[in-house]
Amino acid sequence: MMDISQQWDNFLNDATEEEIEAASLFLASMERKRAGLNGTHIGALMGITSEYQEPDTLTMEIPNTVLLQNSLDILHGGLTATLLDSAMGTLAFKLIPEDKAAVTTEMKVNYVAKGVGKHFKCVASVIHKGSKLIVMEGKVYRSDGALIAHATGSFFVISKRS
Amino acid sequence: MMDISQQWDNFLNDATEEEIEAASLFLASMERKRAGLNGTHIGALMGITSEYQEPDTLTMEIPNTVLLQNSLDILHGGLTATLLDSAMGTLAFKLIPEDKAAVTTEMKVNYVAKGVGKHFKCVASVIHKGSKLIVMEGKVYRSDGALIAHATGSFFVISKRS
Amino acid sequence: MMDISQQWDNFLNDATEEEIEAASLFLASMERKRAGLNGTHIGALMGITSEYQEPDTLTMEIPNTVLLQNSLDILHGGLTATLLDSAMGTLAFKLIPEDKAAVTTEMKVNYVAKGVGKHFKCVASVIHKGSKLIVMEGKVYRSDGALIAHATGSFFVISKRS
Amino acid sequence: MMDISQQWDNFLNDATEEEIEAASLFLASMERKRAGLNGTHIGALMGITSEYQEPDTLTMEIPNTVLLQNSLDILHGGLTATLLDSAMGTLAFKLIPEDKAAVTTEMKVNYVAKGVGKHFKCVASVIHKGSKLIVMEGKVYRSDGALIAHATGSFFVISKRS
Repeated sequence: MMDISQQWDNFLNDATEEEIEAASLFLASMERKRAGLNGTHIGALMGITSEYQEPDTLTMEIPNTVLLQNSLDILHGGLTATLLDSAMGTLAFKLIPEDKAAVTTEMKVNYVAKGVGKHFKCVASVIHKGSKLIVMEGKVYRSDGALIAHATGSFFVISKRS
Repeated sequence: MMDISQQWDNFLNDATEEEIEAASLFLASMERKRAGLNGTHIGALMGITSEYQEPDTLTMEIPNTVLLQNSLDILHGGLTATLLDSAMGTLAFKLIPEDKAAVTTEMKVNYVAKGVGKHFKCVASVIHKGSKLIVMEGKVYRSDGALIAHATGSFFVISKRS
Repeated sequence: MMDISQQWDNFLNDATEEEIEAASLFLASMERKRAGLNGTHIGALMGITSEYQEPDTLTMEIPNTVLLQNSLDILHGGLTATLLDSAMGTLAFKLIPEDKAAVTTEMKVNYVAKGVGKHFKCVASVIHKGSKLIVMEGKVYRSDGALIAHATGSFFVISKRS
Repeated sequence: MMDISQQWDNFLNDATEEEIEAASLFLASMERKRAGLNGTHIGALMGITSEYQEPDTLTMEIPNTVLLQNSLDILHGGLTATLLDSAMGTLAFKLIPEDKAAVTTEMKVNYVAKGVGKHFKCVASVIHKGSKLIVMEGKVYRSDGALIAHATGSFFVISKRS
């Protein structure tokens, strides 16, 4: 079997422009993950940056890239959901003690406009913080300020050892 | 600026085993997309294979890989949603005329068990098929047969030119 | 102040046919509640009858009456939701120990056809039964067999004393 | 068969205090409907009052009564949903031309605190207004100001003759 380095060379040799772009984006994602900027591959691949506004808002931003688009060149609804789940979940972790974890039990997303443009911003906020269940709201905006998706989600607070 | 081939070589030179695996998976995804097996990068990255059971069921399968996991080594809830949206949306397209498209207007997912194991299977079926709005159900199972997520979603039928 | 009996006589004296019908339905609901056929006023008002199919299905039926209709003479979406919540919640109680209670934490309803006809049947079933969280599905059908609404809901299991 | 007036007298003769209260509330609801204060029986029964704040907010209030409570003396989740659907739907009608109607296609409610206290206030607002689909948000508060439920809902805009 060819080694991975050889495979990459072969692939890049006859790659289209979009393929080169995709490969560069993936490489950048690996470096983001290596540098600890993202904890997960999908987060790194989406290029998520996160900012916590105390006490109860969290903002995540991503650039729009070919890797994230559906067949109509629009941000894939599943990745919009990924961004929303990540932002609401990360905020949930900010609100609970160190020895607890928060797991998504349900999420509903309303898609209201096309995800196009240069980048996307997701704002997560708290609807209700109970000791066992936290209910969040998330909104995704595109560069021109238009809302593209709205979500609510429930996060169950569990012991990290459970 | 270093060319992309050089960058890849440098990256692979001091890559960990997980990074090599991730790079192989990404390369495989590029080949899946090049071969037309998946229409989108995220679909290729997830390694989605799809099978339509006439008249109104569609099954998608994905292998479980490091690329898809959250920080707890569990299938990321956003990617579970991506699989569900893809399966329900693909089924919606099977039910409408060639000159129409179906866009997700909303989706709700209940997460009921951890996404672990070798692979995942998503089964989409029809709750209601109207001329303008199609309501779908989706279920995701892991290798051991346990249900990990349940979804419902609404798809708005539009003209392809609108 | 006039006593209630006098007020009723006055009201009935110049009541329309629909008002007489509504008054009869309300009176019947009071008798249902008095006889213990329904535990709540709204359940009695809707004339809910319930049947449990072991181990994990519950069916509720209601007649269609003027009391339940919106301004278009269609079953009010909120009462469709009430029927669904009642059926799913009642089923949840069947699945838990005597000293526990189940409270609805979220419910999503898709309305897919007009609620018209002689009566409605709601079938609740189990999507997932965890020790702390139970996820249910509910479907409402009209007399001609058409599905009018589909719901999923989450029920949190608590101690009856909490 | 006994006439309705006679039946009422019989019922009231040996009615409990709660039954008298329920009968009074029902009578009041009939008068609300007769006076045109509510368009539907369920709206009248809940004693809904509505106020539109231009351009895009609508508030509904209801008193807490025995008629609306579940077996734990808490506002029935289905009636919370009824209030939310009514408020969001009424607001939807404010936003569309006279010859159009808005029908609920889906609604999701998160229940976050017990519905107790003297009265409830529901505030509906607009998440997105499209020409064919309007997405709304609704919140229900109790007298002490605590949020008890949060909802999102989709309303499909149709011709009144369709």
